[in-house]
Amino acid sequence: MVRIALGVEYAGDRFEGWQSQRHGRTVQDVLEAALGGVAGEPVRTHCAGRTDTGVHATAQVVHFDVAARRPLSAWVRGVNGALPAAVAVRWAVAVPEQFHARFCAVERRYRYVLFNSPTRPALLAGRVGWFHLPLDEAKMVEAAACLVGRQDFSSFRAAGCQAKSPIRDLREVVVQRQGDYLLFDFRADGFLHHMIRNLVGALVYVGKGRYPPSWLQEALALRDRSQAAPTFVPDGLYLCGVGYEPHWSLPDEGRIIAAPQLPLT
Amino acid sequence: MVRIALGVEYAGDRFEGWQSQRHGRTVQDVLEAALGGVAGEPVRTHCAGRTDTGVHATAQVVHFDVAARRPLSAWVRGVNGALPAAVAVRWAVAVPEQFHARFCAVERRYRYVLFNSPTRPALLAGRVGWFHLPLDEAKMVEAAACLVGRQDFSSFRAAGCQAKSPIRDLREVVVQRQGDYLLFDFRADGFLHHMIRNLVGALVYVGKGRYPPSWLQEALALRDRSQAAPTFVPDGLYLCGVGYEPHWSLPDEGRIIAAPQLPLT
Repeated sequence: MVRIALGVEYAGDRFEGWQSQRHGRTVQDVLEAALGGVAGEPVRTHCAGRTDTGVHATAQVVHFDVAARRPLSAWVRGVNGALPAAVAVRWAVAVPEQFHARFCAVERRYRYVLFNSPTRPALLAGRVGWFHLPLDEAKMVEAAACLVGRQDFSSFRAAGCQAKSPIRDLREVVVQRQGDYLLFDFRADGFLHHMIRNLVGALVYVGKGRYPPSWLQEALALRDRSQAAPTFVPDGLYLCGVGYEPHWSLPDEGRIIAAPQLPLT
Repeated sequence: MVRIALGVEYAGDRFEGWQSQRHGRTVQDVLEAALGGVAGEPVRTHCAGRTDTGVHATAQVVHFDVAARRPLSAWVRGVNGALPAAVAVRWAVAVPEQFHARFCAVERRYRYVLFNSPTRPALLAGRVGWFHLPLDEAKMVEAAACLVGRQDFSSFRAAGCQAKSPIRDLREVVVQRQGDYLLFDFRADGFLHHMIRNLVGALVYVGKGRYPPSWLQEALALRDRSQAAPTFVPDGLYLCGVGYEPHWSLPDEGRIIAAPQLPLT
């Protein structure tokens, strides 16, 4: 058996989440079917971040074990030929059997893209969140500062979250405006279920003036989900980086690279 | 009757072109249905640029006549509530009855977005063209210079093109690389059928080294479509601006505005 790691990109609005379901309409289902076709044997995958329905990935990391020997290009071009258009393998490398896409990951990075415009998006429907009233990004930047650090994020945790601990080390939060878009970048050892969508909902409450920036610190301290803001839609959320120790020599750190200059207004 | 002009954005991969068809799956069909619902009467629209299947628009301009009096917001928010997610009205203004979206337009701007990467796009499938081999943008810039001016573009005209003349005033062509993306911006009084997709195909021939930059000038001079390069896919083509005389006071010049920073790699 050899263990192979893959970098995978997908449009989350075309799938019912990462994790395999009986109906087969998940990213894991279509990826395992394509890998199995190339391998000529059943293939079971493990990913770094099990994204929900509607959540996208530019740099999901996946590993699998396989008996069949294939050139690495078969795990990229061969598999891409069998995948739906909305998912693609970007790279493949052989890794030691000690490597595990989920358990060896030391950092995850997510970006939330929010379209802040009176009219809804059309070209990017399903690919961005949308808020129609003006948002004050300076207040959101001020509020977000309290989030950084190793803290209890119970106030931003979904009711059904299965994590053992609500403590996460949130290493960086960057909130910035680029024209009609607000970008929220989060970097942490890991995230609780719905944590980013809940944090974005809370930051929007501050940005629209419902609460002052200091409210976010208070909401965090309460450790009570019911006191915070509604969960934002998944449409604008992207898994865009998974960090591993350098000795694994993965080809991609999941950097956020410049966007294509689509002519979007 | 009043005449209303609209700015319209749509994802061309979700429709079978602009122009109304019996099957009803075109942008014009869904827009006229939504407008008719708000007006309470049948509405017939006219657009500035009748985009083909798969071609997108960020700044299509449309006009229609209507007897019903509605606040302008009804032609934006009301209509958007009745439209599919992949199309949206961005603005509406009342215009004089002499205004015509197509015949008063003095300029059209299109952008072609080409993803230049060994692996195919997933998140932007249907929204960008793709070429997998390296492209030398300096050679493409050099080649494109010959295109500017009032010229006969027969070499880049589709066989079925219904325009009376093959002469077009191509005012500006900008070819640039941004990371893995090549952007081709064209500004002209108008374009022949498939003209931009044919020009992009020819520029890719130069970029990949099949022909030297000087070949494009020769192909243009031949005025013979059969001597040029294949038509590129519509996926990367965006109508992103329609120019009118300032006295019409439309709210938008169809500027190309900064793209959202999607975390695309």
